[in-house]
Amino acid sequence: MQDTDFISSFAKGLKVIEAFDEARPRLSISDVAKTTGLDRATARRCLLTLSELGYADYDGKFFALTPKILRLGHAYLAATPLPALVQPTLDQLSERTAQSASVSVLDGTDIVYIARAAQKRVMSINLTPGSRLPAYCASMGRVLLAALPEDEARAVLNRSDLKANTPRTLTAPDEIIAELWRVRAQGYALIDQELEPGLCSIAVPLENDRGRIIAALNIGAPAASVPAAELVERYLPILREAQVALKQVLR
Amino acid sequence: MQDTDFISSFAKGLKVIEAFDEARPRLSISDVAKTTGLDRATARRCLLTLSELGYADYDGKFFALTPKILRLGHAYLAATPLPALVQPTLDQLSERTAQSASVSVLDGTDIVYIARAAQKRVMSINLTPGSRLPAYCASMGRVLLAALPEDEARAVLNRSDLKANTPRTLTAPDEIIAELWRVRAQGYALIDQELEPGLCSIAVPLENDRGRIIAALNIGAPAASVPAAELVERYLPILREAQVALKQVLR
Repeated sequence: MQDTDFISSFAKGLKVIEAFDEARPRLSISDVAKTTGLDRATARRCLLTLSELGYADYDGKFFALTPKILRLGHAYLAATPLPALVQPTLDQLSERTAQSASVSVLDGTDIVYIARAAQKRVMSINLTPGSRLPAYCASMGRVLLAALPEDEARAVLNRSDLKANTPRTLTAPDEIIAELWRVRAQGYALIDQELEPGLCSIAVPLENDRGRIIAALNIGAPAASVPAAELVERYLPILREAQVALKQVLR
Repeated sequence: MQDTDFISSFAKGLKVIEAFDEARPRLSISDVAKTTGLDRATARRCLLTLSELGYADYDGKFFALTPKILRLGHAYLAATPLPALVQPTLDQLSERTAQSASVSVLDGTDIVYIARAAQKRVMSINLTPGSRLPAYCASMGRVLLAALPEDEARAVLNRSDLKANTPRTLTAPDEIIAELWRVRAQGYALIDQELEPGLCSIAVPLENDRGRIIAALNIGAPAASVPAAELVERYLPILREAQVALKQVLR
């Protein structure tokens, strides 16, 4: 077997795992072939391998992932010190503000939640470590995009599906780039119902002890209880404290 | 390429991902070969594939997983309706009791957390969806083992590393089996500092609408504030309510 065969079969297998999601929890061989663009025979081999190894269940027609799959994602969460380092700060933030506090990192065009301390759920989706949101319209995404050189940020926007989730969502790349300059200058990003109606949030970058931005920290609040205009006054000072405290901790 | 080659390279790749954990966040090719039992050339191919696909970073010597890995574990969490269905109940439970509430499922000899609502951290480890604990000494593990036929439960115990985490931990298979009979009869499991000193918990099984036990639900509390003897009186009625409410929801 050649290196290229090896790489390609491993890559295809990983692609098949990613074919399962909220909208597609149970998939047939043809479903997977269609979603991944793999041919039927390859999709079948990948699915049977997953089933053989206990990562998927098969009822003769449909495949569904098993909890064993969580070992893979958990390998990252367990192996990276960031979630454990920030969790106590998030718990405090969430308790002090009675809102949800989260930390995320950039992965392609998405932000990925790596730690979260949640109060009552205000979003329509349930966010947990591993959850993803599009970067262009999320406060942590704006902070992380603002940390990139402009051409890289623009390249991410070009690859993004810039949808108007609400009438307020910025979708024109030039407008978003202008907003990123503002975010960089003021040191925080404010989102007023661009991701979903009724949800506001404010985010700051997290630097490690060498001054490199490695993650973003935010507080999200229902617009009905805390209008976006008040987020800065209420929460920015607390976020700044957390930012300074975490800078000592993050290496 | 044969089916067996395919299956074997995909399987090896997944094994390499699982080689990374809290104690081993950065691994060289030799480290991975040692941990997984794969030969050096295969370990190298798997690692370079992960790096090529963006699932790992490579600094020329060490590999580390990237947040992209979370897509894999998240595929399960997003694809299974259970976490989203139980989260509102967990949030309520945690708020009413001011303790942490969790739901987990059995995977081999471990329980895997799939949802959690946490109050201040009482355990030495940070539990998030995807976290694993040995089933034999955890309250949710006892409930899930008690749901198995005795020979299957015994087979899981035989494959388990039955360690005395504390002087109170049951480690003799026959004693644990006897405890499982008690759990089955009383409908709940109580753990008094068998997993770690200072931590108590009480768990009940969650049935779907056809009466099949599909998960376990628990409340954990610091022994210093709630002695194990009081867990039943304080929390069992609330857990029972949640159990009944969730039975309507879980299909």
